Amino acid sequence: MNVVLVERGELDAAGAVWLTDERARHLRTVLHATIGQVIRIGLVDGPLGVGAVMSIDDSGVRLSCEFDADIPAPPPVDLLLAVPRPKVLNRLWPQLAAIGVGSIILTNAERVERPYFDTHVLEPATWRPLLLEGLQQARDTRLPHVSVHRRFRPLIEDQLDSLSTAGVRLVADPSSRLSVREAISEARFISRRPREEARADRVLLAVGPEGGWNRFELDLLGFHGFVTVSMGPRTLRSDTACLALLTLVHDALRA
Amino acid sequence: MNVVLVERGELDAAGAVWLTDERARHLRTVLHATIGQVIRIGLVDGPLGVGAVMSIDDSGVRLSCEFDADIPAPPPVDLLLAVPRPKVLNRLWPQLAAIGVGSIILTNAERVERPYFDTHVLEPATWRPLLLEGLQQARDTRLPHVSVHRRFRPLIEDQLDSLSTAGVRLVADPSSRLSVREAISEARFISRRPREEARADRVLLAVGPEGGWNRFELDLLGFHGFVTVSMGPRTLRSDTACLALLTLVHDALRA
Repeated sequence: MNVVLVERGELDAAGAVWLTDERARHLRTVLHATIGQVIRIGLVDGPLGVGAVMSIDDSGVRLSCEFDADIPAPPPVDLLLAVPRPKVLNRLWPQLAAIGVGSIILTNAERVERPYFDTHVLEPATWRPLLLEGLQQARDTRLPHVSVHRRFRPLIEDQLDSLSTAGVRLVADPSSRLSVREAISEARFISRRPREEARADRVLLAVGPEGGWNRFELDLLGFHGFVTVSMGPRTLRSDTACLALLTLVHDALRA
Repeated sequence: MNVVLVERGELDAAGAVWLTDERARHLRTVLHATIGQVIRIGLVDGPLGVGAVMSIDDSGVRLSCEFDADIPAPPPVDLLLAVPRPKVLNRLWPQLAAIGVGSIILTNAERVERPYFDTHVLEPATWRPLLLEGLQQARDTRLPHVSVHRRFRPLIEDQLDSLSTAGVRLVADPSSRLSVREAISEARFISRRPREEARADRVLLAVGPEGGWNRFELDLLGFHGFVTVSMGPRTLRSDTACLALLTLVHDALRA
């Protein structure tokens, strides 16, 4: 935990917060915080800041909070992900938030198994704490926007433009010869989707199910501006591929 | 499972293999293999090849094997990793083998907790099947060479040169201003370690414990040719960082 995130509703009128959960335990037993100590804090979807320890004991920790004027920008990458197995998705949530994703758009696909949708892993009560865990690791405050879509085609045809403003759209496909870096630098010159609101400095990355997208799905993505990219000859599990591709996109956008 | 790996000792005199374990189950229930079908196989630490199904039923699957002449080259990256929590390491094994690592050199460090060494996760009986799982995912045959070292200093000073021939040595450090790509392209011009056997096309990547390397450890690594690299402002969990950095090293070496 490299920053302690608090919710707006947790602040009292004096701008102080009273922590009793895992965050309090972390401050006491890992940071060994003492009265007067100043620690890094952040407001969920708000600014970073500092908190001064006003009281600390077994019942909880009270922090007096001061926040920066600016709110961190959301990460420049959105993710369109075919719903993975619940166990895999559970592990992915904090890692996605830590690596940095603006929106997580979960979708059905032919090779997504039906029961994957009927799981608590897709419920905010499950993913919200896991995303917060990842943000606290990465010292960010911007909670990824999560949406779940049971129908692929209407999502791609009608809803995607309003879910992501990314001007560069990539889809992982082992048969591609283009690297993430090449695709991004090319797409910055040739704007493939001249939508008014599209932003060349944002990337929407599509990662398919364990068995891959089917032909129809790949064609539909291609028709809607997705350029295929590959990471070389090794086939990775979809969760490893997801983290690896997000890393490459972030790296290419920084260059 | 994108290739079925068999051990040399499993082959009979006629070059056939009789599978009864998870591999047989995969062939029956996932690939729905039938007699005569040819599937991708590989020999552990040997060549890739093809296997023709000679018999298949509930008791097992018999394959007649033909192997290529060439053995795949080992991945061009070695990993020096401070021993992570057992649960984390357990998850990492297959992912490391899938992303591709020549040697996995596990080491102690100040911030590695003592009990991490006394765990079955460090025993070949645990990691070998997990590494094979990763290789079968990535369609590779080269089992990473694993070694475990309880003393950091003798490892770095005396043993490292014989454990990795990599001519480029990188250590992840958030305070660095150099990206993986920059460090590798620079190191290729300026050979920092003019050892005879050092290879400029191989990278040894050092990833520290959850709390980071201490000053002494970083200095010792620096003295032995490790250049610090960073992935930007976000602090990742050590296992996520490990996968992300390996991805960037592979990507930079391919460029």
